[in-house]
Formats: sequence, structure tokens, C-alpha cells
Amino acid sequence: MARGRFISLEGGEGVGKSTQVAALAAALEGRGLKVLVSREPGGSPGAEAIRKLLLEGEEGRWSPRAEALLFAAARADHCEKTIQPALAAGTWVLTDRFLDSSLAYQGEAAALGIEAVRDLHRFGSLDFVPDRTLVLQLPEAEAGARARSRDGHAGDRIGSRPPSYHAAVDAGFRAMAAKEPNRVKLIDASGNPATVTARLLYALGDLLP
Amino acid sequence: MARGRFISLEGGEGVGKSTQVAALAAALEGRGLKVLVSREPGGSPGAEAIRKLLLEGEEGRWSPRAEALLFAAARADHCEKTIQPALAAGTWVLTDRFLDSSLAYQGEAAALGIEAVRDLHRFGSLDFVPDRTLVLQLPEAEAGARARSRDGHAGDRIGSRPPSYHAAVDAGFRAMAAKEPNRVKLIDASGNPATVTARLLYALGDLLP
Repeated sequence: MARGRFISLEGGEGVGKSTQVAALAAALEGRGLKVLVSREPGGSPGAEAIRKLLLEGEEGRWSPRAEALLFAAARADHCEKTIQPALAAGTWVLTDRFLDSSLAYQGEAAALGIEAVRDLHRFGSLDFVPDRTLVLQLPEAEAGARARSRDGHAGDRIGSRPPSYHAAVDAGFRAMAAKEPNRVKLIDASGNPATVTARLLYALGDLLP
Repeated sequence: MARGRFISLEGGEGVGKSTQVAALAAALEGRGLKVLVSREPGGSPGAEAIRKLLLEGEEGRWSPRAEALLFAAARADHCEKTIQPALAAGTWVLTDRFLDSSLAYQGEAAALGIEAVRDLHRFGSLDFVPDRTLVLQLPEAEAGARARSRDGHAGDRIGSRPPSYHAAVDAGFRAMAAKEPNRVKLIDASGNPATVTARLLYALGDLLP
């Protein structure tokens, strides 16, 4: 049996990521592939327990360094218990966020350093990376407007951070696309959802059977 | 106000660590010092929540790598929220286990590498280390017998691991004492508890006011 492919979908707040995860999964299934949809933080029982620690409690409960270690621990469990067994069984795995979110949010925006955060992934998950990472991108103003219209405010506590923070997250994703152009592709998330899904599928063209 | 001193007590299972933490704290308080007793994993609200994740659930719930990341996250929180503020306020902090347990258990016994585990501490806690680390040591046979008489079996799921595992933990502690002889002192834990406490106090002689 052919090994499944591992795809991560990334992007800042309000870029339509959840919608596209579902649409892309449906499109891949429509091509006869078996698809497992997952998410981070979480995706395995252990990682979901860590997710609760990360998302509960007040802002500032965790220092950026403790937070980065918790994300890396959750990711190690997600890889080992969910993603790798599924791929070995021939299933495609599509995850809503993965490593590049940590590199962009903790490494770049929280200024811990992209290489330092990558080292945690080297330690925890032996640098296991997706076959393709698709980063949805919108101009900041449009993304903020989408998040506000969805939530009545600019998303959760991360979504409500200042524009400079979101610009740094975006810079982190761009840095990864520049560094690993074969793995990380920037995708224009503007326009109607079906058009965006078509762009995502196109960016997976070389991987599709 | 003089900064407090930070002391960690370490050792394998059944060496009498809990008894000595209490006795040493009382001895230090008897000298007029303000002492905060803490423990790992745990020691702050966030770290205690991580402790639950580490100690609950079945054996093998976490891979050694995920486990090491969780310990490092808990330690980062413990340092930042509990230990460093107490020291700054002039309080001595005496903790039941700290960094050297991770180096011995995950680094040496679980074979992740002492330097790799130390790197996690460099990332999470900027390599913050105790002023003195006291490692209680007993011959393996005597420690096993103590743990069994206390618990009706050889301690918890870690205590019930084979002698080769405990020998590796011991080797890890010895390696740290060889590497950082001014910080890490091996203390003979045989004999009556008061004698052992006297040995611990003696090993803190240069730090006492």
C-alpha cells in the first residue's frame, strides 16, 4: 500500500482556514483518497489534553517559552499516535495547523527565534514535517474584518492582538516559504471559497495520484 | 535584602528523599532562614496541571520525548512563577527534584542524551540551576527494600522498573556530579535519618549565613 501524504494548512486569524480544511478534505475524498482531518494543538488524546492546558485560563498563564514546550510536546504525541500510523496505513492526513504555526507564532511573533523553536521539533518529533504546507494569506485588513464578522470581535485572545503581532506571524510564514519553497507554499486566500480550494488543490498537483 | 539560595534534593526511588526534604527545611528554618519547600514535577499552578498529565493515565501514555518536553515546560513555569520570585524576596527554596532528575531519568535512563535534555532547560528556563544540588545515594538493594517496605511494592510505576533502569538513573546523577562538582554533591543516604540530615547540612556549609 502506498504511504499517505501529510498536508498541513496554515495561516493567521480570519483567513478562512477551517472552511478550507473541510473543503480540501472533501475534494481529496472525491478523488478516492482516504483522508483523516486533524488539528493542532491536539489531534491525539494526549495532545488534546495539552490543548486544554494551552487554551484554558487567563492570558499570560504560560510564558512564551513554556507555551512553545507544550506545543512541541503535543506535536510529538500527535505525530506518534495519530499522523504517522495513519500515513503508514495509506491514509492522507490533513491538519489544521502544525509546526509552521509554532515557528510563526512563538518563533517569530513571540521572538523566541525560528531556529530555537525548530530545535524543539527536532527533539520531540525528529523533525517530521509535512509533504506540503499550504499557508493561506490575506491582506491584514481583510483578515481582521472576516474574524470580526465571525466572532463579533477579532477572534480569540490571539486574534485580538495588535496588527504588529499579526504582521510578525505573517513574516514568520513568509520566512518558512522562502526557506523551504518545495514544502511551504503561500496561497492567496481572497475571492470565493471554491476558488481558494481550487488554488489549494493546484498546489498539491505533484502529490496527487 | 540578600537573595535566597536555591537547593534541589535528588535521588532514585527509596533513598528517603521526602523525609530529608522535610528535615532539611526544618533545620534551615531553625537557623532563622525563611524556607519554601517545593517539588517537581509541579511547584506552581501551571506546573501542577502538567504534573497531572504526567502522572495520570497508563504507562506509555507519553513517549520519552513528549515526557521530556512536558517536564521542561513544567520546570519553566515552576522557575518563573515560584522559585525566582521567592529567591528575589530573600526566601530559600528547597525543591524535591529539579533539572537533574530529567537529566538522569530522561537523558540517561531513557537514553535521550543528557545534553539534549539540558538543551530543553536552556530553552525553557535559560539554564537556571540550583546553587546546590544534593543527590541522596544508597546501594540499589537497600533502596529497593526501603521502597517496598513503604509501598508494599517497589514504589510507583517508575519504582517497579528493572535494576538496569535504576542503575542508569544512578549513573546519570553521578555524571552530573562529575561534570558540575561545585553544584552537585553526592550524599550517602545510609544510616539513621538525623545523620543523613547532618550530612546534607554539611554539604551546604559554604552557602549558610
